[in-house]
Amino acid sequence: IRTWDLREHPHIRYNPLTEEWVTVSPHRMKRPWQGQVEKPQEDDIPRHDPKNPLCPGNTRPNGKVNPDYDSTFVFDNDFPALLDDIPSPEPSDSPLFKTAAACGTCKVMCFHPRSDVTLPLMSPQEVRAVIDKWTEINTDLGKKYNWVQIFENKGAVMGCSNPHPHCQVWASSYLPNDPAIKHRTQREYYMKHKSPMLVDYVKQELNKKERIIIENDSWVWLVPYWAVWPYETMLLPKRHVQRLEDLTDSERNDLAAIMIKLLTKYDNLFDISFPYSMGWHGAPTGEYMDEDNSHWQLHALYYPPLLRSATVKKFMVGYEMLSQPQRDLTAEQAADKLRGLPDTHYKHRTS
Amino acid sequence: IRTWDLREHPHIRYNPLTEEWVTVSPHRMKRPWQGQVEKPQEDDIPRHDPKNPLCPGNTRPNGKVNPDYDSTFVFDNDFPALLDDIPSPEPSDSPLFKTAAACGTCKVMCFHPRSDVTLPLMSPQEVRAVIDKWTEINTDLGKKYNWVQIFENKGAVMGCSNPHPHCQVWASSYLPNDPAIKHRTQREYYMKHKSPMLVDYVKQELNKKERIIIENDSWVWLVPYWAVWPYETMLLPKRHVQRLEDLTDSERNDLAAIMIKLLTKYDNLFDISFPYSMGWHGAPTGEYMDEDNSHWQLHALYYPPLLRSATVKKFMVGYEMLSQPQRDLTAEQAADKLRGLPDTHYKHRTS
Ligand SMILES: O=P(O)(O)O[C@H]1O[C@H](CO)[C@@H](O)[C@H](O)[C@H]1O
Ligand SMILES: O=P(O)(O)O[C@H]1O[C@H](CO)[C@@H](O)[C@H](O)[C@H]1O
Repeated sequence: IRTWDLREHPHIRYNPLTEEWVTVSPHRMKRPWQGQVEKPQEDDIPRHDPKNPLCPGNTRPNGKVNPDYDSTFVFDNDFPALLDDIPSPEPSDSPLFKTAAACGTCKVMCFHPRSDVTLPLMSPQEVRAVIDKWTEINTDLGKKYNWVQIFENKGAVMGCSNPHPHCQVWASSYLPNDPAIKHRTQREYYMKHKSPMLVDYVKQELNKKERIIIENDSWVWLVPYWAVWPYETMLLPKRHVQRLEDLTDSERNDLAAIMIKLLTKYDNLFDISFPYSMGWHGAPTGEYMDEDNSHWQLHALYYPPLLRSATVKKFMVGYEMLSQPQRDLTAEQAADKLRGLPDTHYKHRTS
Repeated sequence: IRTWDLREHPHIRYNPLTEEWVTVSPHRMKRPWQGQVEKPQEDDIPRHDPKNPLCPGNTRPNGKVNPDYDSTFVFDNDFPALLDDIPSPEPSDSPLFKTAAACGTCKVMCFHPRSDVTLPLMSPQEVRAVIDKWTEINTDLGKKYNWVQIFENKGAVMGCSNPHPHCQVWASSYLPNDPAIKHRTQREYYMKHKSPMLVDYVKQELNKKERIIIENDSWVWLVPYWAVWPYETMLLPKRHVQRLEDLTDSERNDLAAIMIKLLTKYDNLFDISFPYSMGWHGAPTGEYMDEDNSHWQLHALYYPPLLRSATVKKFMVGYEMLSQPQRDLTAEQAADKLRGLPDTHYKHRTS
């Protein structure tokens, strides 16, 4: 009788952070694809586009003029999803019609004055400036808001409408769904095991080595055991760190170095500027600053949509929307693939 | 000082079925869109394409020949995500590396012999045949499997690779994430309130009338209070019904009638064959058949991706993937919009 093989047999895996399962169907990469293909990327982005509202010196749709910035540049989102100083709803009487107040603020952060560079093409000093600015924003907005979500939507396929390298920050009075559940699951684990879940997890992954892609003195880049997107990854410090602002100077330099390496590998997967959504999760802020957050471990999440090629993505639809996410290659296969990619960016390759 | 207005001020709403919040930003529809636009749909689908593996009489990639069917037609998915009779993993020792066995089966169901029709363009009898077949499949597969997920991915933007009208059925030994949480939340509500959550919910919505789009003797189509996708809706029986197989003959006829009406409105929103993922959730099957499932209310979910036009969708990325879903128009605005649309399909309109 056949023996169980993770690389061959469909199975489900559990994400202890979100308490959700993912269906893994390793045999399914073989199926042909006749569905939608994405537009290939434009590769002729000008260094400075006088009409791009993110470029230095340009006028934004609301009439404000950007400074002639030469590093990062942060400004208020001109079309924010969250607003401050708004009235609050009456507390609702019914468990079926629950509304709550939501105040917040939305910022945009440019990574660099040039439109034709991306993080992996920047110098370590330039990426370090991005990290320092992230830290500063998290500290500043964290004084007032319970959650500060730093995230980057990259590529047209992710709904990103502007090729200029940038990210967003949405800070809110409420703790959003995903952080809220991670707050609870990490706390429950901590109470039971007396050590932070993700610190334990990284230790075990460093022993197993199967899903680690790269590491340096202070960081590990890996495909989590429970990854949903084909090339989903996590970036974690080796030391127990609750928030960006707790990183030491050398840990920030190491972060810049590993970010350049990992984003280079991502770009080299299909020889394109790799689309993804990424963001940071760390201990909540605002009112949570007074609480013990020892159960929290800082981490970045990368969610790239592509599956087969530069133009064929994984569609999270139907079964995924209604029942449970499903993936077509195992986390181990994805890690192997990424590990094997060159460390020199395809744009720097001498063919 | 300004008073609270649901139609104007950002807020969060709670989904009691999934225990998740959605951020509602009603003021945000005003922002301009410079991002990705989808390809307009092809509208010249042939009635019978000799190369389409779903058409009657055609040969599928695996060499099997479809019968010359003249109503619905069900066959095994040639590239199933779930398999039967596979070995199971060893029970895992670590809370961080939990794997479980997953066996199951995947079917494809054609709705109609013609490729150039969709459900809203079919006759009530033809739609009724689809409903009867759904019921039959749920009963059959429900004998063996704990969950039978019937779902339809429609449109290229939903990753649907074949224009022939069809849906899929994935049946599994495990209860997937979403059904599992709804199983728990509905049970908790039932224990507390002594009546099924969604039966109570529909009663209250029928009183409020704000989010009802259409109704007939036995069904209600509404935008749920906690909707995430711009035009997300739910279709529910007025009576307490646990599973498709519990519907009476006249309830099935009413279902066919309301499905044609609702899908006509959807198509009329942007005068295109409206893309969506839809599916049925009802009481679990298999081993759950022996349990009391009085807390369950059958319902269909429609998740359409479009936001502004036939080619501009809502991107659930960045903030949505990392923190919490966010929507740009209220559930009430979406219901108003859909309610106001004509009941005659745009293809039948005499302009
Ligand atoms: O089975 P299909 O239609 O080829 O595939 C489609 O639906 C499946 C179930 O929702 C998804 O897992 C796939 O990503 C999607 O492309
Ligand atoms: O703010 P942007 O980049 O215009 O908008 C993009 O990111 C937001 C936050 O993830 C999403 O809500 C939008 O759907 C998406 O189009």
